[in-house]
Amino acid sequence: MHTKFTADLPDIADIHLARTRISEQTRITPVLNDPGLDKELGCSLFCKCENLQRTGSFKFRGASNAVLRLREECIEGDVATHSSGNHGAALALAAKLDGRQAHIVMPNDSMPMKIDSVRRYGGTVHFCDPTHESRERELDKLLGKGVIPIHPYDHADIIAGQGTAALELLLNEPTLELIITPLGGGGLVSGTAIAAESPGIQVFAVEPEGAADTVASLQQGRRIESWQPDTIADGLRALVGVRNFALISSGVKRVFTVSDTDICRAMSLFWKEMRMTIEPSSATVIAAIANHPEVFHGKKVGAIVSGGNIDPAAWVSLLEQFSE
Amino acid sequence: MHTKFTADLPDIADIHLARTRISEQTRITPVLNDPGLDKELGCSLFCKCENLQRTGSFKFRGASNAVLRLREECIEGDVATHSSGNHGAALALAAKLDGRQAHIVMPNDSMPMKIDSVRRYGGTVHFCDPTHESRERELDKLLGKGVIPIHPYDHADIIAGQGTAALELLLNEPTLELIITPLGGGGLVSGTAIAAESPGIQVFAVEPEGAADTVASLQQGRRIESWQPDTIADGLRALVGVRNFALISSGVKRVFTVSDTDICRAMSLFWKEMRMTIEPSSATVIAAIANHPEVFHGKKVGAIVSGGNIDPAAWVSLLEQFSE
Repeated sequence: MHTKFTADLPDIADIHLARTRISEQTRITPVLNDPGLDKELGCSLFCKCENLQRTGSFKFRGASNAVLRLREECIEGDVATHSSGNHGAALALAAKLDGRQAHIVMPNDSMPMKIDSVRRYGGTVHFCDPTHESRERELDKLLGKGVIPIHPYDHADIIAGQGTAALELLLNEPTLELIITPLGGGGLVSGTAIAAESPGIQVFAVEPEGAADTVASLQQGRRIESWQPDTIADGLRALVGVRNFALISSGVKRVFTVSDTDICRAMSLFWKEMRMTIEPSSATVIAAIANHPEVFHGKKVGAIVSGGNIDPAAWVSLLEQFSE
Repeated sequence: MHTKFTADLPDIADIHLARTRISEQTRITPVLNDPGLDKELGCSLFCKCENLQRTGSFKFRGASNAVLRLREECIEGDVATHSSGNHGAALALAAKLDGRQAHIVMPNDSMPMKIDSVRRYGGTVHFCDPTHESRERELDKLLGKGVIPIHPYDHADIIAGQGTAALELLLNEPTLELIITPLGGGGLVSGTAIAAESPGIQVFAVEPEGAADTVASLQQGRRIESWQPDTIADGLRALVGVRNFALISSGVKRVFTVSDTDICRAMSLFWKEMRMTIEPSSATVIAAIANHPEVFHGKKVGAIVSGGNIDPAAWVSLLEQFSE
């Protein structure tokens, strides 16, 4: 998917419009606080539970917005994307609800349950090798047939859609001091940064140590274009996008990194205190809060819990491996 | 715990009072609908997610109400109960929040994570053999020391507290046609029947086939007093209570039974469509809806998803055993 960097960065008006546009399809996910979790983390934490969003992750917000924008613009045709899973399932459902077909290019090492999920929502899976080149080649083949590319994160309508999660969170809890989100390609955090700008709420993000290309990019002052990811957080392995990096550079206070061990411990804590099964990507935010009391202690914090798509057996194995 | 059957059955006013009383401590749990689940079940289903209640089940509502009633009546002292787990954890937390100690008599074959949970909320566990006699003997010892018994379900304040879940559900979705809940001792369904009476909403309940003492009692026209339970739904093994049976006899339209296989299939479906980990007891309602289209098809149905307390490894094992 060739990304032209244009000036089309979304703004807060786009997020408000997205919220209206997608409201018929998306779920207003619950915002949950738990005194037990607060005690463990030393702050007052409000979790926006996107693990309970349709298709099991926040990705459905962006996909729904992007497809409904096509409808508004009277653009017919099937859609395509590359995705390790969550955006793929989300786009498959969004396309199905709009009477389109979705073609999802997935690395052949994707989690089986994420592959199943794309298919269950009616998407057609096209496998590629788990390399950037193979993925682009496979996608180019599809684009040659005239399908419409919907980039997983480096896309104005996707960013605006993802920003609706923070917008809802802030309507629920207007007195938050900080918001923290996971960071993979950067769709969620860049939308969040736009949503949080006007109320002046600081936004933080978290990358797995094994996929910390954004931290490296920020250190170098320019977006790096290659990174071999190595993390259990399969939803966060992507390189940060061009638009996303621009928005993160200006709108995100700090990007933390967490280890896979931190992530597993956080998944376990979230299960114990909240009785929710979340995928490793989601748990990064809990891990970062636990690791950085100097930032979060005593604060009223919003966290976007991004998704709940994990194979149950894999989840148990991660919990057991790192249980205390 | 010797149950005197008295006239102290709660009414709708008690449930409204309970709702106010417990509002500081309990969570207003989300009510979630999912088009995918609706399609599978052939009805429009609104799930009151008590699996996301504090302590992981609706039981905290009743326990909170019972302990705060003691406070109102200026009754000091520690509390005690018998429980296979969820009421024990709930009472432990309710007592802790009120500065009391909770003593929980648990069968020595209780699920380890439910034992841990009671302890994590500060409760003291007293083991007994998994028989009615051993349990009563152990509890009598405690009562001899002056602690206050809080029966898990055959208790007016507990029933009123449990009824608040249906009250909240109906405030959220006032146009429901039917409500269905799991049935063990009957605390939840009897509270639900009171809450649903005035709006005239039919209430249904579900027992596991291996703990169908209420169905047998209804058939015989009197509450049977012995049943050897055999079901994976560990939260529903109790005999229906005296007050509960009276309320069920007058206020519940029909009690269904479901098999353990039905339950596992429903747990799996709930994970696939809702991305929530629920305990077998909760899944009974989904199973009954799936089994009885003649009752539920095309209807707007409320279901109380009662709890999410299950050992993760046990959950996976049940999913795998019965996956389709």
